[in-house]
Amino acid sequence: MSWSLETLGRIHSCYQEKFAVPRQPGLAPSAFATLELLPPYNQAALVEGLETFSHLWISFIFHQNLEQGWKPKVRPPRLGGNKKVGVFASRSTFRPNGLGLSVVKLEGIDLTSGVKLYLSGIDLIDGTPVVDIKPYIPWVDSQPTALSAWAAEPPESLVVSFLPKAEQKLASHPQGSHLKQLIIEVLAQNPRPAYQKITTERIYGVKLADLNVQFCYLDTKHLEVVAVD
Amino acid sequence: MSWSLETLGRIHSCYQEKFAVPRQPGLAPSAFATLELLPPYNQAALVEGLETFSHLWISFIFHQNLEQGWKPKVRPPRLGGNKKVGVFASRSTFRPNGLGLSVVKLEGIDLTSGVKLYLSGIDLIDGTPVVDIKPYIPWVDSQPTALSAWAAEPPESLVVSFLPKAEQKLASHPQGSHLKQLIIEVLAQNPRPAYQKITTERIYGVKLADLNVQFCYLDTKHLEVVAVD
Repeated sequence: MSWSLETLGRIHSCYQEKFAVPRQPGLAPSAFATLELLPPYNQAALVEGLETFSHLWISFIFHQNLEQGWKPKVRPPRLGGNKKVGVFASRSTFRPNGLGLSVVKLEGIDLTSGVKLYLSGIDLIDGTPVVDIKPYIPWVDSQPTALSAWAAEPPESLVVSFLPKAEQKLASHPQGSHLKQLIIEVLAQNPRPAYQKITTERIYGVKLADLNVQFCYLDTKHLEVVAVD
Repeated sequence: MSWSLETLGRIHSCYQEKFAVPRQPGLAPSAFATLELLPPYNQAALVEGLETFSHLWISFIFHQNLEQGWKPKVRPPRLGGNKKVGVFASRSTFRPNGLGLSVVKLEGIDLTSGVKLYLSGIDLIDGTPVVDIKPYIPWVDSQPTALSAWAAEPPESLVVSFLPKAEQKLASHPQGSHLKQLIIEVLAQNPRPAYQKITTERIYGVKLADLNVQFCYLDTKHLEVVAVD
């Protein structure tokens, strides 16, 4: 038995590609996106009262992963990328039905032309199709004492530093200070694949908002941004 | 653009009909269900490690409501059933795509024949098609300070009493004490539609597990179970 879900809206995100997107929402609070509702869902009536909530649930499709399908067991990055667990015991983006779920902060609603929701703390890549929006209701959704054995705490953050020329480049950008904070939050999540050994020689590149950010590992706990274009 | 989601599993629930199902999960902690995974998803591998989590997210389809469709604005019971808000500002079961989301407690996993997950605190009716299962991760999903203007606290509970003959009937049932607790939790949620005036003359009936429960309102804050068959 199958169910047909329509794309209700589309994400326009600071994350231009999958690489370096934090593995859960909220890890990079400076991350931002616009959720643009599509016809016939782009009417002000559908979001009336939404402004009284600070957080939303976004249900979405991992659209870039669907073709690759899923496997019964996955290797969560939190387990070092070598221990396997069942796909339903993980938040893997490769899963049956390819359905994603993120709690995000609602920063504002723009009704000047259709409906646009301004979101932050997102972990959604540009172009993500959204299939539901619900208000976050803390007395229902917040279960602070829930047990979560191997994912009980956020992952450890790495230290992020900048070469002077990268810092100068950011200083001259109109949103430079916000973007610098975003780069710090994103890179602190240790974006390289968990199975990859750290090598200090390799230069990684990631597109964040309108920037190309190049960085390298100085050691296992320390990243340096070497260029921003 | 549309997406095809398969039914991964089916809910066998103590709630045999929509009437009286609590409006959020967790309101009736004694509510119970079995989630039976369907082929090809009913392999032990897919749930390996799930037992280390106490709570799960269940994404499901409001399958009994799809035919009725949705409207841009809805009347949440919490607002007395007369004030309207946008459908995306509500957890209404009549919504575009008909996608539901519930946090539930995982009580156990049965792998003797296929895969069955024992759940509690559910708000899912019998037959509900499940389209995703994810572990609840408190440092991600628990946002206790989130603002939720008109739904900041659980609804007020009503007092539930039993006529002696109803009480006796429950005492002779093998799961009588659990079912009595379930009846109390369910009826305390004030199950009548919010737009309906209270009349002390009307006898309501609801099927819970294998019981037919009949009750009436004694006043606005007090329900009485008059018969259990």
